[in-house]
Amino acid sequence: MVHSFDIALANRLADAAGDAIRPLFRGSWADERKGDASPVTEADRAAEAAMRAILEAECPADGIFGEEYGAIREGAGRQWVLDPIDGTISFMAGRPIFGSLIALVQDGWPVLGVIDQPISGERWVGRIGEPTTLNGQVVRTRSCRELADAVLATSSPHYFSAEEAEPYMALAQAVGRNKRQGMIVYGGDCYNYGLLAGGHLDIVCEAGLKLHDYAALVPIVEGAGGTMSDWQGNPLDAGSDGSVLALGDPARLEDVLEAMSGHGLHHDHGH
Amino acid sequence: MVHSFDIALANRLADAAGDAIRPLFRGSWADERKGDASPVTEADRAAEAAMRAILEAECPADGIFGEEYGAIREGAGRQWVLDPIDGTISFMAGRPIFGSLIALVQDGWPVLGVIDQPISGERWVGRIGEPTTLNGQVVRTRSCRELADAVLATSSPHYFSAEEAEPYMALAQAVGRNKRQGMIVYGGDCYNYGLLAGGHLDIVCEAGLKLHDYAALVPIVEGAGGTMSDWQGNPLDAGSDGSVLALGDPARLEDVLEAMSGHGLHHDHGH
Repeated sequence: MVHSFDIALANRLADAAGDAIRPLFRGSWADERKGDASPVTEADRAAEAAMRAILEAECPADGIFGEEYGAIREGAGRQWVLDPIDGTISFMAGRPIFGSLIALVQDGWPVLGVIDQPISGERWVGRIGEPTTLNGQVVRTRSCRELADAVLATSSPHYFSAEEAEPYMALAQAVGRNKRQGMIVYGGDCYNYGLLAGGHLDIVCEAGLKLHDYAALVPIVEGAGGTMSDWQGNPLDAGSDGSVLALGDPARLEDVLEAMSGHGLHHDHGH
Repeated sequence: MVHSFDIALANRLADAAGDAIRPLFRGSWADERKGDASPVTEADRAAEAAMRAILEAECPADGIFGEEYGAIREGAGRQWVLDPIDGTISFMAGRPIFGSLIALVQDGWPVLGVIDQPISGERWVGRIGEPTTLNGQVVRTRSCRELADAVLATSSPHYFSAEEAEPYMALAQAVGRNKRQGMIVYGGDCYNYGLLAGGHLDIVCEAGLKLHDYAALVPIVEGAGGTMSDWQGNPLDAGSDGSVLALGDPARLEDVLEAMSGHGLHHDHGH
């Protein structure tokens, strides 16, 4: 059970991050080319600093692990994991599909997660054992009867290493076969997991993610009826290897793992 | 010169398309799997039908070429070119970065273009010889001093044929070298060209586009100070081969063509 105090606190963190980020969205990039003080760096730092100030005041015993300012009180059982701007390239390019990620990780397990999109004003909140909400309304993943029906999302083909590209491509070929066009959505970062939680797409497949990239996503996807794992099907915790799968329909996990291992094609043709 | 009547008409077409599309965004996809009457098909058709009805009433002598309902009066000097939902996959996945495209093509040349995003309420309007606007405010592309500084966008790696993938990858390797991370935005379709017109990214590189995909983009990008061409540097008209480049800074066109021809690396190292 996640205490309502922590949920309210996570909402306040998201508010503070959004207030710091919004004025810098679609700002001029003239400065960015001169060095470190880019709008995205500035927005990242300002948002994380605002969140850390609230946490220090309200929960001085909790650990904090942020993308910009690192870790403090690493031994604490409660860790706030912060990624002020997930989807940096979308933020830089002026696309309103990046997000602020806030997670509460308890003894290594994510129990509370927030994806906040401060431009469109969309906020997904997930907590263990409770239904996920988008702006306060309960959302649910959708069912997916077979892989050939699935819509797949991933942020960028460049995020896969050479060894990771092969299982990814095997999955890409297995999905969307029942459609006239390939059903793969590129770009989107954390926003894709919110859309999956809302039943708008079926699978997100990524690799190379850090704890601050995926911790918040787990309670959101699972609270909406989906499942998350690494590419071997293991649950995600603070020690995961950064390979990430999210499925709206947990019944398709075996098919996805089979397709990615290169053994899914025969099974699929059998339908 | 584009007559103000045509600009007002194009705005009314975009209003009508948005009214048809908005109720179907993030609709249930249960029906979609049963056959043809998918929400995206329904939205596509309803939006194009609404636009065609206005055009038939207001400009009965003009030709119309629409993605869904084909061509009528193909011999007319004035052709309205319509793509009710460009970025079908984004629409399907619930991402507010698809768009309705409306172009007026005169004797084969696009002279007026609209990109309308009906969820975020963003509308880019471009006409030959006039500054491009976003929701009525003039927008400008940004300068890009060298390719290594550029942010590149493309909708999907799967849209390139095997022969097209090579020049694309050569360009992808040439951009963003001055950054810590690759500066390539994936996904986005027509929305990327609006962001380029607003100075948020530098290059869009795509292939396999149809007239209804690119006609509206030309006046928008060029009216904002950028340039568009095919992959050989030729201006885009109704007979182009579907390879498309958009540059915010026309001074970089030669560098881009050089990079794509595989001869850009040496030149680049010379900086």
